Amino acid sequence: MIDQTRLPLEEVFIECGDYLCVADAIKTMKVRGAPAIGVSAAMGIALGAKNISSTDKMEFLNQFNQICDAISSTRPTAVNLFWAINRMKNILEKNKDLDVSFIKEALVDEAILIANEDEEVCRKMGENGAVLIEDGDNVLTHCNAGALAAVSYGTALAVVRAAFNQGKNIHVYVDETRPLLQGARLTAWELMKENIPMTLIADNMAGYFMSKNKIDKVVVGADRIAANGDTANKIGTYSVSVLAKENNVPFYVAAPLSTIDFNIKSGDEIIIEERAPEEVTHIQGKQIAPDGVKVANPAFDVTPAKNIAGIITEKGIAKFPFTESLKTWGHKSQSHKDTSEETCGLMNG
Amino acid sequence: MIDQTRLPLEEVFIECGDYLCVADAIKTMKVRGAPAIGVSAAMGIALGAKNISSTDKMEFLNQFNQICDAISSTRPTAVNLFWAINRMKNILEKNKDLDVSFIKEALVDEAILIANEDEEVCRKMGENGAVLIEDGDNVLTHCNAGALAAVSYGTALAVVRAAFNQGKNIHVYVDETRPLLQGARLTAWELMKENIPMTLIADNMAGYFMSKNKIDKVVVGADRIAANGDTANKIGTYSVSVLAKENNVPFYVAAPLSTIDFNIKSGDEIIIEERAPEEVTHIQGKQIAPDGVKVANPAFDVTPAKNIAGIITEKGIAKFPFTESLKTWGHKSQSHKDTSEETCGLMNG
Repeated sequence: MIDQTRLPLEEVFIECGDYLCVADAIKTMKVRGAPAIGVSAAMGIALGAKNISSTDKMEFLNQFNQICDAISSTRPTAVNLFWAINRMKNILEKNKDLDVSFIKEALVDEAILIANEDEEVCRKMGENGAVLIEDGDNVLTHCNAGALAAVSYGTALAVVRAAFNQGKNIHVYVDETRPLLQGARLTAWELMKENIPMTLIADNMAGYFMSKNKIDKVVVGADRIAANGDTANKIGTYSVSVLAKENNVPFYVAAPLSTIDFNIKSGDEIIIEERAPEEVTHIQGKQIAPDGVKVANPAFDVTPAKNIAGIITEKGIAKFPFTESLKTWGHKSQSHKDTSEETCGLMNG
Repeated sequence: MIDQTRLPLEEVFIECGDYLCVADAIKTMKVRGAPAIGVSAAMGIALGAKNISSTDKMEFLNQFNQICDAISSTRPTAVNLFWAINRMKNILEKNKDLDVSFIKEALVDEAILIANEDEEVCRKMGENGAVLIEDGDNVLTHCNAGALAAVSYGTALAVVRAAFNQGKNIHVYVDETRPLLQGARLTAWELMKENIPMTLIADNMAGYFMSKNKIDKVVVGADRIAANGDTANKIGTYSVSVLAKENNVPFYVAAPLSTIDFNIKSGDEIIIEERAPEEVTHIQGKQIAPDGVKVANPAFDVTPAKNIAGIITEKGIAKFPFTESLKTWGHKSQSHKDTSEETCGLMNG
């Protein structure tokens, strides 16, 4: 995987030989973005399981659980992490009567399947969301919900990419996204690579450009979506949603159904990760605040469903109120019964 | 003056021997903040005038105008700059029949008067605003409207200081204020020097803390206030005002009457300075975005009067709609007729 902490100045790739390396990459945000975290978690578990030397079933199960625990303790907010771990656990459960070598094979296959599905899901999301973007639109995005945040293509940026590839003349305002600058470092880098017109701004400029009617749509990704549509995403997303509402700019979330946590009714239940103060006091190693300053550093916030014009998924675009449509699509998706085209429209309720 | 671009890691003082040094300090933001810009402009003009070697009146006037032009071309938004230049020009006008040496003396006296008045005005503003801050309040501020932005004491921070000195138990959330990080570098430094409890946050976190009911009041400074109360201040202030309105947090502006531009009816007429892209792409010399990225960098935005609960001035606190009270105070202040205590209350309309 590419080390996202080194972008955009260096393109350094990390090759992990064991699951601890993968866990560390997630924790230190060398890999980040909800879908990419999910895929990395699955790959890390498959790698860890493959490396277990014991052929004794009990010992294998014991070590497998240790691996899952290590991976699950990396970051608390992105639900895709736990979703991927559960898929791997389910594979183990299904195959537990087989020999250890067969179980390992099944786990590796599942991790590859998760990665392939992610790519397909992102492309579908892009297609579904692109209908919302009109020729000439200025689209604001916050953080990085691009190819780097997924296997490829991305979530919010999948929508931008699809609209651009359809020949629409679009321009993207990119929030730099403090503290870790995923917008300045990653989204700008991705868009420039594809020659999609863009302008980088500091986070506190988004409201100004909205008030000047320079922004037509907002599209962001998500780290966890509650059953009612409340959306946890990178810190600052909530503020963008309030500014969008004030200025009558439609605010969209693009996320795979795997980002929806049907176990929680609303955003109040979402745990917000507090990260190290150094992320605020230092930028790329340079100290920008006085020694010993007190800092708060919540990594996410929750955008209430009422501020969201639509949630773009691989099954279609859900509209407020979201509970029913998300539930229907989520259950269908989880039961793997339905991938037909008929649900890929606009769904209300 | 202290070089504000080097804070908080270094306390370096600049001593200017000529007006070009002062103009450069304003332009490069070594000195910044509307009141401090005004005082520096006056001092720069006095210094420049003092250095004119010719005793010929016409030659002196010619060079004086060159000095004023150089100072006035440094920054376009802060009205205090033009207000101070006008005061100096008026002194010249009043004394134009005297010898050059007497004119020089009058200009130096006026610059010193402007500096002394600024200090007094800031203290009055602090006293007037402190009544708004309750024991236990969490106050958010954006940018630096502290002692560094004025001769001493500050504008928004004058209110915080006065409340703290009255023994109120307060805590300040400090927006770091991208791109130039005046909050992280200057406001944090000032508050820590005075042991006023504070927490530094990235700009995009303010909305999160408001939504969690962690912020009770917002107090910011101003660079130019239109006759109707529309307020130009550091980029991001408008966003804070929208978030405050959404979360029912009172939003106050603290500014001397010299910051009010009675020549413009509304904020639509305020020129917004666009600064260099490097302020966004580089932080303390470190590059944070891809080479060649396109950037926007408006230095200010305009907060509409309707988002402002009160404008704290040296004469009292004006309430929405502001036009009448600001006009009354402004005219009284400009005619130097009234400094009585009776106007230092809360004035509506």
